[in-house]
This record gives sequence, C-alpha cells and structure tokens, in this order.
Amino acid sequence: LAAQKPSIPKGTRDFTPEEMVRRHYIFDTIRSVFTRFGYLPIETPAMENLSSLLGKYGEEGDKLLFRILNSGDFLAGLPPIDQTTAGFREWLPHVAEKGLRYDLTVPFARFVVQHQHELTFPFRRYQIQPVWRADRPQKGRYREFFQCDADVIGSRSLLNETELLQIIGMVFAHLGLRVEVRLNNRKLLAGIAEIIGHPDRLTDITVAIDKLDKSTPEKVAEELIQRGIPAADVEKLQPILMLEGDTRAKLETLSTLLATSETGMKGIEELTTLFDYLDEAGLPCPALLDIKLARGLNYYTGTIVEVKALDAAMGSICGGGRYDDLTGIFGLPGMSGVGISFGADRIYDVMMELNLFPPAIHSSTRVLFANFGREEERFCLHLATQLRQAGIAAEIYPDAAKIKKQMEYADRREIPYVVLIGQDEMTSGQLTLKNMKTGEQTRVSAGELENLVSC
Amino acid sequence: LAAQKPSIPKGTRDFTPEEMVRRHYIFDTIRSVFTRFGYLPIETPAMENLSSLLGKYGEEGDKLLFRILNSGDFLAGLPPIDQTTAGFREWLPHVAEKGLRYDLTVPFARFVVQHQHELTFPFRRYQIQPVWRADRPQKGRYREFFQCDADVIGSRSLLNETELLQIIGMVFAHLGLRVEVRLNNRKLLAGIAEIIGHPDRLTDITVAIDKLDKSTPEKVAEELIQRGIPAADVEKLQPILMLEGDTRAKLETLSTLLATSETGMKGIEELTTLFDYLDEAGLPCPALLDIKLARGLNYYTGTIVEVKALDAAMGSICGGGRYDDLTGIFGLPGMSGVGISFGADRIYDVMMELNLFPPAIHSSTRVLFANFGREEERFCLHLATQLRQAGIAAEIYPDAAKIKKQMEYADRREIPYVVLIGQDEMTSGQLTLKNMKTGEQTRVSAGELENLVSC
Repeated sequence: LAAQKPSIPKGTRDFTPEEMVRRHYIFDTIRSVFTRFGYLPIETPAMENLSSLLGKYGEEGDKLLFRILNSGDFLAGLPPIDQTTAGFREWLPHVAEKGLRYDLTVPFARFVVQHQHELTFPFRRYQIQPVWRADRPQKGRYREFFQCDADVIGSRSLLNETELLQIIGMVFAHLGLRVEVRLNNRKLLAGIAEIIGHPDRLTDITVAIDKLDKSTPEKVAEELIQRGIPAADVEKLQPILMLEGDTRAKLETLSTLLATSETGMKGIEELTTLFDYLDEAGLPCPALLDIKLARGLNYYTGTIVEVKALDAAMGSICGGGRYDDLTGIFGLPGMSGVGISFGADRIYDVMMELNLFPPAIHSSTRVLFANFGREEERFCLHLATQLRQAGIAAEIYPDAAKIKKQMEYADRREIPYVVLIGQDEMTSGQLTLKNMKTGEQTRVSAGELENLVSC
Repeated sequence: LAAQKPSIPKGTRDFTPEEMVRRHYIFDTIRSVFTRFGYLPIETPAMENLSSLLGKYGEEGDKLLFRILNSGDFLAGLPPIDQTTAGFREWLPHVAEKGLRYDLTVPFARFVVQHQHELTFPFRRYQIQPVWRADRPQKGRYREFFQCDADVIGSRSLLNETELLQIIGMVFAHLGLRVEVRLNNRKLLAGIAEIIGHPDRLTDITVAIDKLDKSTPEKVAEELIQRGIPAADVEKLQPILMLEGDTRAKLETLSTLLATSETGMKGIEELTTLFDYLDEAGLPCPALLDIKLARGLNYYTGTIVEVKALDAAMGSICGGGRYDDLTGIFGLPGMSGVGISFGADRIYDVMMELNLFPPAIHSSTRVLFANFGREEERFCLHLATQLRQAGIAAEIYPDAAKIKKQMEYADRREIPYVVLIGQDEMTSGQLTLKNMKTGEQTRVSAGELENLVSC
C-alpha cells in the first residue's frame, strides 16, 4: 500500500504552534474584555438540526451549509428516486438531517429559546467557536473560520449598543490596532426610501447608495433610474447623496430631510441618543455616522455597526447590529437583541501585516536541561519539577544526544536558557547555566536557578 | 408558519455559562500544565479528507465517522446506481469526501507529516478540540466531546513517558482529584502470549486476562480452553494469572516467568526503567503495574497508561501509550511517539459528583450599577469604565426598571455588589454601595469604590 500524501480539505487550515500562540493572544484579549463587561460564555454543538438552520441565511446561505450524511443506511426507507431526472435536490432532505453551524447567531437564538427558563434576562452572552461555510475559498476567506460574538438579548436600551461599542474600543485598544467605528440605523435607511416614495425599494436604494464611495452622485442617480425608479423621485435623493459635515451636522440635516417620515425620525433619534452615550462613555476610537452602511439589511432592524482597521486595506474586521425579533422563529417572540461579531481571522491577518503581535508571546519553554546520561537525568528530574511547580516552563532533552544537537534544538525552539549538568556539576553542586541569547555561561547553585530564569 | 420547537441533535450538548466556567477551569488547568512541560499548541480542521480517516479506527470506527455530503450536485457524474440492490455502501464513496475528525491522534499524525519541515523534533504538541463519533448516545457518552491530548513524537526515550505521567500527576493534583495511574506494556503482553506458545492469540489472551477483575483464575482458564487454546498451554498461564505483590515484586516474578521471551523481557526492562524514573521524579499520585491493562492493543507498541479516579465509580478519565510507527501511514516511517489524552467530559462529571469545583470560579460580574434614569446613567458610564480598566467586571443595568427588578437580576446573577446612584448620590458625590451577601449598605466616594469591590 502506497503511503497517502497527507492533505486537508480546501478552505480549511492547520494551525502551527507559532500561529496558535498568536491566535490565543487575540482570543484571550477578546474574552477578557467580554468578561469585564459581564458577558457570560456559552457553547453550542458544531452540528445543528438542519431544520434550525435552513431558511435563516437566504437561498444562497442554504446552499453554503455543510450537511452531514445520516448515519447507517441513509437510503433505507427512501422511495426509489430516478437519479437522472429527480436530481440531488430531492434527495437532500432525505439523506441529511444535520448540518454544521453557519454562524453563531442562529444557534444563539435557538439556545435562548431552549434554555429560556434557566437564563436571567437581559442575558449577555459571548461565544467563541468556529463556523463552516461551503463558500469558494479565496485569500482571507476560509471554509472553517472563527467568530467571537457578544450579544445582549431582552433589552431595547441603547445602553447595550453603547456597551458593545465600548467593548470594541477596548479590544482594539488592547490589541494595539487603530480602528474606526461606522454606525448607521436601519430605520434611517427605511426613512430615506419612504421620503422618495419607494419604501418597497429599500434594497435597491441602499445598494446604490453603497456605491457612492467609488462613484459620483450623478452615476448613482442614473443607476436608480435604470432600476425603474422615476427620475423625479431619484431627484429627491440628491440632498442625501450630497450629505456633508461631521456626524452631528449630518444628523441635523437628515432630521430636516426626513421630517415627514416617522420611521426615519425614529432612526435619527436612536442615532442621536447613541452618539450622546458614546460621548459620555468616552470611546477610545473614533465613531461616525455612515449612511452607506447597510450590512445585514434583511436582518437588522435598528443600529448597524461596522469596524474598519485604519492602517490596513482590509474589509470589516468586526460588525453587528440590532434585531428586534431574533427568537421569534423558534417560538419566543418580542425579544430584542443587539450583538457584535469579531472576525478573528481577519484581525489576525491585519495584526500580522502591521507587525502588532508582542514578541514576548512567542516562546513557551524557558529552560532546557541538556541530557548527559542516565545518572545526570536524575538530577535534572528534580530541578525541572521544582521549576514547573514555580510555574516556569521547563524541558529535559529526552535522549543523551550529542550536545551540538541538543543546543540546536534549544536554538530552533528559541529557548532562552540551557542548564548543563555533567559529572563536574553533580560533584560540585554548581550547575552551568547558558544564556542562549548572549552565549554567556555561568555557574549557579540549584537554589539560585529559579530566580535567574524567571521572566 | 408555526414556530419550530428548538432542539439539538441527539448526543450533542449546549453548554450554559455555569457549565462553561467549570469547563474552562478544567481546560485552563490542563493547558497550563502542558505549557509548563514545553508542549506547544496546535489545532487541526474539524473536517478531514475521508481518505485520512478511513481504515484508521477499525471497521467499527469507519461506521462511526460522520461524513459530510459533497457540496453542490453530489449526484453529478455518478453512474446510475440501482438504489434497491446496490445499497448505500456503494454510494458512500461518491457522495462524501470529507468527514469529521474522530480523535486527535490521526489528525496529529497527518499534521506531523504535512508540516515535518517546519517542526523541530522531538516535537511536543498539545491539542484541545472536540471530536465526533456517531456512537449510540448514553449516559456519559456523547457524539461530540472534547479531548485534551499531549504527544511527543521523534524520541524513543522513556523520559517522555515519565514526563507525560508527571503531567497527569500535576493536572489531577491541581484539580484536587485523587487518581491512580495503571501502567502496562504491550511487549509484556506479547511475551505472555509467546511463552504459552500462542503469540498469534494475543487478543484472546488479553481479553481473558482482562476479565480477572470480575472472575476467578479458574473461569478465565476455562474460557481460554473454550476459545481453542489447549489446556496444557492455558496451564502455563496460571502463575501469571495468580501474580501477586507490589509492582516491583510482580516485575521480578515476571522476569523469571518470561525469561525465554525476548520481547517479554524487553517489556519488563522498559517497565522497570519507567518505574525507576517515576521514583526519581516523585510522582504526586500512585502508579502501579496492571498486566490486565490492554487498551488500544491494535495501536500501542510499548507503554500503556490508564488513569482512574479513586473516589468515584467512573471508567478511565485519562489514558495513552506509545506507538512506534504513528506517521508511517502518511509516508513518514520510523517516528516513535507517545501520548496521553484527558477525557474532559468524564473529568467534569467526576468533579461535579465529588463537588470539587472551587466556588470562587462561579460568578463573573463583581459590580452592577443600578439604573435610575438618563442623567444617572452618565455617572455610571464613567465609573463602570474605570472599574473595567482596572480589570473589574462591571455592568450597568440597561433600563431604568423598577429597583426591585434590578435587585432580583443582581441576586440571580450572584453579583456581589450593587452601586446605587440617584439624585442624592449625584449631589453629594457619595455613592451607595450595597453588599448583596450581607445586605449592608454604605456610602462611599467614587475613589474608594475600586478598592472596596476588588477581589
């Protein structure tokens, strides 16, 4: 039997120790901030019943779900299906009942309904787990990737939005990543569609507005006319497309333009309150109104959030928003929630690009005991145990290999100290301690060792 | 559309915050000990190519793999198969190319071969991730569960076994769980089969020996005769079945009994060296020879380890062993490895049963700021930010709800301190701090708060 050339499914990744240490650094930072704001951890299974997942992410989302083949004879009891004419779509519901989770929001909604009697509301939860999407893999887009979500459910207060934005501010401050927070409100967008007389064309209008970045107000107007909105109505959009000034100025202009839309004015009121809160809380990063922001339009009902890194060309590295009826689909109506999701993989890529990982997180072992043979090992066993009990990472080289090989091992592992204990050292009780960075060797007593090698 | 009653696939679990905090406690303890011994973290994808998994866990294992349906039209290009006669087994290889990982050892072997040029050997890695098995769910057996593995690859030294047993000792000492380590060696078992003249019947012999716990030497002998081993040969097994005394005495007796088996004597030599090492290292838990131990017989080639809790009736909570050619199947022959795996879910169950989780890990939020309205919130925002920056978990109740409701929330969340800031407090600058355990209320300045509420 020829040996297999090992590989992993496309779009998935192994993480080496160097990568893991950096990933832990990101996850630990996010987790510690979540905890400071009183968010509680939960985890849900990798597999959900497909009935919980299907229809929650649109038609495109359904196609991107990874489905798990039923165990055992998955064809048992199936009526004969003509393979050539019926096609695979007819088979799908029969051969797979479970799927891998696609995000952490739908499992969270399912969790809240299922455990509602054990939970205290408002319920703040965080969840850091991988999700899977059968998307076409490309640079920065994976089929298995990690989300770090925080949500509050059971309160409509904009203090929750404020808190989540404070979390965003603190996380990126701790990571040393300069970011900008952009905010919008779904009600504001609905108000815009209303005042030009086309509340049903919200999606077309926001798609067009979204192109303002790379286009001109004239071209955007042209596109809307092509999409069938009368020129006279598109004309009404001009002042909104031309909106200028800082956030407060924009909100003031909008409150005149949207005066006749109740929904639009509600959106402005919410945004104004939120920016007031943010001023009072003293956010450590800039936050501004961006009416082009329309992410998750089918989903969010109030605040919409997106975070961009200021020093790297990368899309959104964190985002979120408010949804007024997250758990209704699972039988618990009227629960308003607001949440954010950190994209750990993109944050990782940006931090690598900007060289932001502290060098100190790199190596894990502090001390290597060189191995000179059976008798010397006994000495090392005791000393290594003492160091480990004091919380210092220590290894004994497992074989009495040539000292050159052992030193190369220490070098490649970037272990800062090597302890050499041979016959001389055993007789005198004075160990030889080698500093691998300076090359300096000193004789030290066993008692001094711990202090000399600790960080 | 009727709302779905939410549920999760059988054999899987949600983890509530109370459970998560305890699970983190176990994982963090294990991780911190792994790190002190120089083990490095890796992670591998949840999905592996089925070609990497199939045939690695025996026929039964293949059946227990969760398979992922190919994306898109999984029937495309398949020759017509008569559904009724061909059966599902013929379909399997065509409709699914990927499967969920079944353990962490095979993915580790695949990882080592794939990344061999980036790694420094001997390579010590740890890995804490879920695995999936389509096993029949029952009490204590789940379809998704976590393994915490540590392995060393690229060294035959028994110092590695010693180190892994020291890890076991330190982990359970830190968790406060009294355990006993049982050791055996596959070569010893092979020697036993050899000296009674049936090296090819190793499995039958170990299965019979394994029953000694619940049976008598006579009945075990009878069973072996029924399985077709001549009575005269079974007779030769008697002294081994009757083996008595402590570990050293047993090893001495065995070295006489197995004197004619080179393999058997090699096993005794390895065990003797290992027990010498353990004496020198000073293991914090008892370790003894158990010749009945035969776990993973098809797999291990040397040392076999099993750990049992002393104060609870639970199977093995940790186990492992040495395999001489782990990576051969992936094209890298001659790499000896030894590893252990902690069963986090069983450890959790035992610790719950014995009430071993420290109460201090329970609550996460230290301080709740009660909410009396818009003006008061401003005050709270500042103070909460100060506490969080000092690393103290703080929440502001998001709505100006009735104070009774807010207090109930603090009670149910077991938050130890509530800060009350109303008109009085804002005017005087003296906050009201309520200790929720004693019910005591004191007036304190904003500056004193941090010290009073920190742990």
